[in-house]
Amino acid sequence: MELKYQGKTKDVYQLEDGPLLLKFKDDVTGENGVFDPGANTVGLTIDGAGRAGLSLTTFFYKKLNAIEVPTHFISSDIENATMTVKPATVFGKGLEVICRFRAVGSFLRRYGAYVEEGQKLESFVEVTIKDDDRLDPPISADALTELQILSLEEYETLKQRTVEISNFVKAELAKKGLELYDIKLEFGRDAETGEILLIDEISGGNMRAYKGSEYIEPLQLEKIMLSK
Amino acid sequence: MELKYQGKTKDVYQLEDGPLLLKFKDDVTGENGVFDPGANTVGLTIDGAGRAGLSLTTFFYKKLNAIEVPTHFISSDIENATMTVKPATVFGKGLEVICRFRAVGSFLRRYGAYVEEGQKLESFVEVTIKDDDRLDPPISADALTELQILSLEEYETLKQRTVEISNFVKAELAKKGLELYDIKLEFGRDAETGEILLIDEISGGNMRAYKGSEYIEPLQLEKIMLSK
Repeated sequence: MELKYQGKTKDVYQLEDGPLLLKFKDDVTGENGVFDPGANTVGLTIDGAGRAGLSLTTFFYKKLNAIEVPTHFISSDIENATMTVKPATVFGKGLEVICRFRAVGSFLRRYGAYVEEGQKLESFVEVTIKDDDRLDPPISADALTELQILSLEEYETLKQRTVEISNFVKAELAKKGLELYDIKLEFGRDAETGEILLIDEISGGNMRAYKGSEYIEPLQLEKIMLSK
Repeated sequence: MELKYQGKTKDVYQLEDGPLLLKFKDDVTGENGVFDPGANTVGLTIDGAGRAGLSLTTFFYKKLNAIEVPTHFISSDIENATMTVKPATVFGKGLEVICRFRAVGSFLRRYGAYVEEGQKLESFVEVTIKDDDRLDPPISADALTELQILSLEEYETLKQRTVEISNFVKAELAKKGLELYDIKLEFGRDAETGEILLIDEISGGNMRAYKGSEYIEPLQLEKIMLSK
């Protein structure tokens, strides 16, 4: 099996018969030894972080596949921290699609003149481009089409899917007494059919969750969500 | 006459019978003694800069009013560097609407992974919020409506007007052998009727112009455009 790509938190292997194998690592993003899903650098290694992220990802993907949301998920092997997925090509060099239910993080940093910290937002969707050197800048629908990263029709699909998936995740968190503040998703085009698929992971590292006014760290979130 | 507001490059006075009087100052934005229209700080004072900016602004506003583009312009007094305008309220705390014909400046800094410097763009419109502390961040149509800064209908009007006005200015520059790379415009709502008006100035300080591969500084641009 051939190593195709080494990511910050996952390695990607090509399987012989078509699918890809994602190996979840114990490296997590953060700065100064603190796990920060919004950070661009790998800050520390936590034993079991890969398996925990994969467990929650598997939990959500199985539910999403069951309601027929198109995703790249085929199967997972928690013990070995691997997930088998359909190959997909990303938009441009990769986009992150964020859905916000409360104004925190980079949204608050940008628009603090117009919102209070934690103010409710209406399933607000925005896109950022994955570009560590340029600090993942936000990009408008018009700029995405102008730069031929995607078509306006594809943008509308991404936006609708993001609202749908994010509200699904929000409802799952609510069952455990948690509130989803924001979540970032990734999409790609199915390498065979061109269909738009949800890709990458859906774990604590992709979202900010609170219990009342208390921020729940990614590993804690995974523990709460997967407890019986 | 009452001083209402002191800006970086203009002071605003309330006239008794309704209109406002804008006094163009000789202070220009820039850093380290270099006139830079994109800068947020007043860097230097150039004798005659206020009158030069007003002259070019008057040139464009008279032409725009003649083709019935709604603007705040009533009249100007070049000698005293003042312009009389209809009062208008800005959107939120003020927006800048940028039309780009070539990828330079902050667009290139943000999206350099997808464009070459100077690459042609199709009358590309984007909006930034005026917020010196947050370095005038770009903002999407969705965020503008989410934050109730304007309605989606108003956004579409701004965008259409921006394309129309910017292409008009581009054509005027082309008559003098100059190429417009980008321009930033401001709009407001007519304080009486609510109609969307083009406001502020349209001078060298609002645009980037080139003659072949040579950048033309704002004061030089004003000289070229107003020469017979």
